[in-house]
Amino acid sequence: MPGNKGVVYEGPGKVEVHTTDFPEFELKDGPGVNPANVGRKVPHGAIIKAIATNICGSDQHMVRGRTTAPQGLVLGHEITGEVVETGPDVEFIKVGDLVSVPFNIACGRCRNCKEGKTGVCENVNPDRPGSAYGYVDMGGWVGGQAEYVLVPYADWNLLKFPDKEQAMEKILDLAMLADIFPTGFHGCVTAGVKPGSTVYVAGAGPVGLAAGASAFLLGAAVVIVGDLNKERLEQARSFGCETVDVSQGEPGDQIEQILGVPEVDCGVDAVGFEARGHGADADTERPATVLNTLMEITRAGGALGIPGLYVTGDPGAQEESAKHGSLSIRLGLGWAKSLSFTTGQCPVMRYNHQLMMAILNDRVQIAKAVNAIPIPLDQAPQGYQEFDQGAASKFVLDPHGMLAGSR
Amino acid sequence: MPGNKGVVYEGPGKVEVHTTDFPEFELKDGPGVNPANVGRKVPHGAIIKAIATNICGSDQHMVRGRTTAPQGLVLGHEITGEVVETGPDVEFIKVGDLVSVPFNIACGRCRNCKEGKTGVCENVNPDRPGSAYGYVDMGGWVGGQAEYVLVPYADWNLLKFPDKEQAMEKILDLAMLADIFPTGFHGCVTAGVKPGSTVYVAGAGPVGLAAGASAFLLGAAVVIVGDLNKERLEQARSFGCETVDVSQGEPGDQIEQILGVPEVDCGVDAVGFEARGHGADADTERPATVLNTLMEITRAGGALGIPGLYVTGDPGAQEESAKHGSLSIRLGLGWAKSLSFTTGQCPVMRYNHQLMMAILNDRVQIAKAVNAIPIPLDQAPQGYQEFDQGAASKFVLDPHGMLAGSR
Amino acid sequence: MPGNKGVVYEGPGKVEVHTTDFPEFELKDGPGVNPANVGRKVPHGAIIKAIATNICGSDQHMVRGRTTAPQGLVLGHEITGEVVETGPDVEFIKVGDLVSVPFNIACGRCRNCKEGKTGVCENVNPDRPGSAYGYVDMGGWVGGQAEYVLVPYADWNLLKFPDKEQAMEKILDLAMLADIFPTGFHGCVTAGVKPGSTVYVAGAGPVGLAAGASAFLLGAAVVIVGDLNKERLEQARSFGCETVDVSQGEPGDQIEQILGVPEVDCGVDAVGFEARGHGADADTERPATVLNTLMEITRAGGALGIPGLYVTGDPGAQEESAKHGSLSIRLGLGWAKSLSFTTGQCPVMRYNHQLMMAILNDRVQIAKAVNAIPIPLDQAPQGYQEFDQGAASKFVLDPHGMLAGSR
Amino acid sequence: MPGNKGVVYEGPGKVEVHTTDFPEFELKDGPGVNPANVGRKVPHGAIIKAIATNICGSDQHMVRGRTTAPQGLVLGHEITGEVVETGPDVEFIKVGDLVSVPFNIACGRCRNCKEGKTGVCENVNPDRPGSAYGYVDMGGWVGGQAEYVLVPYADWNLLKFPDKEQAMEKILDLAMLADIFPTGFHGCVTAGVKPGSTVYVAGAGPVGLAAGASAFLLGAAVVIVGDLNKERLEQARSFGCETVDVSQGEPGDQIEQILGVPEVDCGVDAVGFEARGHGADADTERPATVLNTLMEITRAGGALGIPGLYVTGDPGAQEESAKHGSLSIRLGLGWAKSLSFTTGQCPVMRYNHQLMMAILNDRVQIAKAVNAIPIPLDQAPQGYQEFDQGAASKFVLDPHGMLAGSR
Repeated sequence: MPGNKGVVYEGPGKVEVHTTDFPEFELKDGPGVNPANVGRKVPHGAIIKAIATNICGSDQHMVRGRTTAPQGLVLGHEITGEVVETGPDVEFIKVGDLVSVPFNIACGRCRNCKEGKTGVCENVNPDRPGSAYGYVDMGGWVGGQAEYVLVPYADWNLLKFPDKEQAMEKILDLAMLADIFPTGFHGCVTAGVKPGSTVYVAGAGPVGLAAGASAFLLGAAVVIVGDLNKERLEQARSFGCETVDVSQGEPGDQIEQILGVPEVDCGVDAVGFEARGHGADADTERPATVLNTLMEITRAGGALGIPGLYVTGDPGAQEESAKHGSLSIRLGLGWAKSLSFTTGQCPVMRYNHQLMMAILNDRVQIAKAVNAIPIPLDQAPQGYQEFDQGAASKFVLDPHGMLAGSR
Repeated sequence: MPGNKGVVYEGPGKVEVHTTDFPEFELKDGPGVNPANVGRKVPHGAIIKAIATNICGSDQHMVRGRTTAPQGLVLGHEITGEVVETGPDVEFIKVGDLVSVPFNIACGRCRNCKEGKTGVCENVNPDRPGSAYGYVDMGGWVGGQAEYVLVPYADWNLLKFPDKEQAMEKILDLAMLADIFPTGFHGCVTAGVKPGSTVYVAGAGPVGLAAGASAFLLGAAVVIVGDLNKERLEQARSFGCETVDVSQGEPGDQIEQILGVPEVDCGVDAVGFEARGHGADADTERPATVLNTLMEITRAGGALGIPGLYVTGDPGAQEESAKHGSLSIRLGLGWAKSLSFTTGQCPVMRYNHQLMMAILNDRVQIAKAVNAIPIPLDQAPQGYQEFDQGAASKFVLDPHGMLAGSR
Repeated sequence: MPGNKGVVYEGPGKVEVHTTDFPEFELKDGPGVNPANVGRKVPHGAIIKAIATNICGSDQHMVRGRTTAPQGLVLGHEITGEVVETGPDVEFIKVGDLVSVPFNIACGRCRNCKEGKTGVCENVNPDRPGSAYGYVDMGGWVGGQAEYVLVPYADWNLLKFPDKEQAMEKILDLAMLADIFPTGFHGCVTAGVKPGSTVYVAGAGPVGLAAGASAFLLGAAVVIVGDLNKERLEQARSFGCETVDVSQGEPGDQIEQILGVPEVDCGVDAVGFEARGHGADADTERPATVLNTLMEITRAGGALGIPGLYVTGDPGAQEESAKHGSLSIRLGLGWAKSLSFTTGQCPVMRYNHQLMMAILNDRVQIAKAVNAIPIPLDQAPQGYQEFDQGAASKFVLDPHGMLAGSR
Repeated sequence: MPGNKGVVYEGPGKVEVHTTDFPEFELKDGPGVNPANVGRKVPHGAIIKAIATNICGSDQHMVRGRTTAPQGLVLGHEITGEVVETGPDVEFIKVGDLVSVPFNIACGRCRNCKEGKTGVCENVNPDRPGSAYGYVDMGGWVGGQAEYVLVPYADWNLLKFPDKEQAMEKILDLAMLADIFPTGFHGCVTAGVKPGSTVYVAGAGPVGLAAGASAFLLGAAVVIVGDLNKERLEQARSFGCETVDVSQGEPGDQIEQILGVPEVDCGVDAVGFEARGHGADADTERPATVLNTLMEITRAGGALGIPGLYVTGDPGAQEESAKHGSLSIRLGLGWAKSLSFTTGQCPVMRYNHQLMMAILNDRVQIAKAVNAIPIPLDQAPQGYQEFDQGAASKFVLDPHGMLAGSR
């Protein structure tokens, strides 16, 4: 049996690359594994050799110590790779297939999965609907920032690329299918983006940039991205977005300069609960700022897509109510404008096939849009650190040295 | 020219029936008329003899002094009646037509109207999209709790009943088409109610009861209505709803006793910002209680329809933030469950034709469900008072004594 | 191992009840089994003891000799029963569960299944997308008009009833979930039926009656059913439908007498290719009559749901072109009215959970609407014969004598 | 009063440019004017100075003598221009506005208009729902291949460009908003085109090319256009489409060479009833060929958008049944694949605002895609002739010489 190596959370601010267990077709006990999941058989699983496995902004919430993630947790839920072994119940996925792994783990048998709501599968996380690899309170499925990782319900969960050689040529783009590309796209779809829309995306991190690229793919007329981080705004401009520097104040005025009106058709929240204030408040956490601003600048009758993560509890919050997941929302403003709001994990499977087709046919350059940069697995700690400091990059770990030259 | 008489807001807690101006095809200056609307010509209007004109819970917000409504405002936005005069631009509506008037005033020419978003018409309220008759900050269109009222853009706004005699037989039911039946229905539609759904409606006032009746019309398997008011809960049970007495505590447990699970597929907020707490908190205003509870009891992947009114400012609120329209929402909970939320005025025109058909063909008994009670126009003050005290009734003013025997 | 007994097609006009093989977790060779499916392992399957297993109108197409169905084919695709054995890969379905079996066999792993299009699953029928039990050219899965039947991909395909005792009380209603209730419902949904709609259903056979009941469940204002068979029209009237006797001529006039206009909002074709003419043509096959009539009587901008079966080839057709599946359609008429058309097998899984909820909560009496009549398995030949002669009944085979008193 | 000049149909194969009446706010009697429309007052109308007014393929049906169009009919329904006079009921549109005129005339007051179905407005054509300028059996509204034209219900029908100067810079693109861009877009939307789709567009005439450009705007992965005309196929390739030469045989094989599979996700019929056969049949009219082929090559579970015109009667048809608008459709094939079909006029208003935004923000080059070529009004006869002979161009008449240099 080969060995394994993975990125492990070792406490606030600290990730390390360790030797870890090679996956078996059973969910063994370990840090963060839900007791009800310990010993769960996974004959329907596939073992994936991770070729590209990305660092995600939502991992940062854990690494910053803003969650109850246990020490020893193997991180990573954005996995792309090759199938090296399949369990006895796997029928359609074959060893050698090159696949994308949706970050949401789903059983493909419950009511929610049958309705396409794979982000809230009822059978994989004993605590509540919804799960992910290597994430706190998500059932304990081992993370995939590693050389090898187990994917349960492989026939259901895995998206096979039709041609391996072609896929390897676009592997950095395809690596974005596991999470951020569908997540940004979901934000746009639920915000009602369609050909000719004007769109404001709050946040120019990787999900915000992916939302911007998605908006263009959906035919948006104008895409405006707002952030405090000048380097990330520059990245947004690199593929045609207009930008708003929210450190300069509320975005309405800047939007008016771009569009002639202070409102957009569609608003996307790609920031979530760790938002900072605008203008003079830019150094302070203001967890409701993004939503309140989006209500202000989204046209009456419009919609808000909210892929940015909001949590049920945030022990590290500055405001007392935010510690319990309550935010001070100007709901009356939204109501007066007849807005609608869609929250939650993106159900990746709803979109990954179509987005794969867009990538393979050169209709979108998602890796370039988010500035995907491959780094060796061993440099994950530096990747986490740079990303936390606001690098305008999406770091893609390369556990097997197969991404050289793929940028 | 005949005279006119209407229900006038005369200050907190005080409504009176006064002689008022007979409508002309122009919006004259008066209490609450937006300066930009003063003198506006209305050649496209029709003058309606109000046969049934209802008192609405949202009128109560003004009468209780919770808004900036000016003294002298003629109230009333739930109007059903006969066309007695049409302006020179009216082509299809004819004198003698019996019609329902959607409470939202809409121009039928702006982008939002063309998209069916008549609740946020851009051309009738100079302050912001969206308008209504006899309502504060809605442009100043004169209310219709009166003998006669002007309806602008009559060809667009009015729904003609196909047969006058048949319509008079069901006039109390048809009177609910102006607002609460479509509003309750919109709450259900946006909450995703469909055949077989389990539904929780927060609030057993007229909109809540209309939502309950709507849920059944949409095929819901089980409709559960929650309130503090035992008489209103009894009314909900009268047409097949299950009920939850929220004075006894959070509704989850009671829902579990009914359904076997503590969750419903769809949640409808028919309460809005004047909500009270549950259980021991039942005497205290808790403006976010309903939404937070709905997030708790709505199934992951579900939706919340929010026809209950939330305001941009509430000077009379107990909490400071609520005075500015900010509520403490457990958004993290909703996000974890991938919920979606639809707020705002119901665009009545989207639904009133189909609901009229359901009434005329005896597929729903909406007047009975909401316990519609006709009272003379002169008794409007008592009607307001009784309704404010929690009567399980929907009062329908009868300015011309045409509703006798219609119950 | 227990024995098995099933209804077998023995040639045009001839069905017999024979001893058949007890199912194993493998698809063995046999009449009509696609060579590519022979020997297929089914570790994901469950063996069902059929408690209620219905005769379907689409079975009649085979029995009448209108298809290439081979002699020896075990018929039956409307199966409800108890799980008596599960394959090693089955995780969530348990022995003892009482379940409904969607007539479409689906893998739950292909692109179409993931999109909810289980009627065109790509992995179960080597000939083309889409499959069913006991049906010609559908892959060869053994039919379920039998004591026992194998259901592949059991975790995906089976709908478990939440409470066995409650389910047995409504077993005749629940038996309609396997096919005709969802099929009629799908016809209505794709025809755009919603609260207040006027609906014309062509055909008062079981699917037409199920469509009628579905239309009411969806809130339709008026449901009109047309047929040549007076007994079936009487059955339609028994639960509130209006009826049109098409032997008396084109339905437009009769519809006008009912509605005041000669058009409906929504048209449902519950007849399919074995249609007869209207009026004087009532004795002649007119395979395109139903569609052409529906285009005539459906309102401009409306939609047609077409659950009635149309075949790719019909060797027994009277018209030459119909033998090759071509029909003479007045497409120009449909185009001028901007109609839309939805064809194909109902994807049962899209609807069966919600319709089960409607049944269990007494919101629909589907067994009564279609006049479900249980008969012993041995009387299947008579059931086929009576049904073919136009009995206004839906025959439910009762292989284990468990339906006594369930009517 | 200024004079007027327009393109007049003078019999099969013959169009001439004549002096015509200057429009008044009344529909006067004339060739093809429905008697019930004669004398109709149009105080809600606006008189448009046509700046760009296109020749449409559907005009060719009349000019070829395939319809009952009367001699003397002023042609033209693709109008873009400046408002020079407004009727007394017009409130929001102003003299001087630069506007696009949707080809469907709609009242903005009937049930269909309120539902957004402006292609089947009930109040403008006494014969049946739906109307257009300068078209046979459409009510008799005078055509707009003229210097000036009357547009009824101007506030409802007209789309105002936000900035005149900017609009004149893109006037050839904006001229496509009156018909073919929304029409092609509608074909794609109803065929289910979304990001990542593979699309086959039958027909490389202007609507087919517009459908191709629309598919890209909607994010399609691969767009394949089929035609017999090599020059038009070349035009399709000019903006990134793949092409299939149907004179070489059925398109399935060629599609397989492009995609690796012989099927696409979405099929668009941009040909209509004047289709020719494929391969050896390419010289013969085969009015059902396109639809039957699309059913063959569209993936199971897919959809067909059918913007190509099918007529209720075609006196010039080669087949007897086609003369009565009946086509021999392989419906069984479509049914087996669970396809859906959407027919009819595009409701232009549903799309023209968003497509205008896409044009103004350089997200689509529609004039270039369809090879729009401005020609003087007087050269309309030559334009008709060249277009009929298969020129790969879209001719835009330039009545006032304002398009010079706009290409």
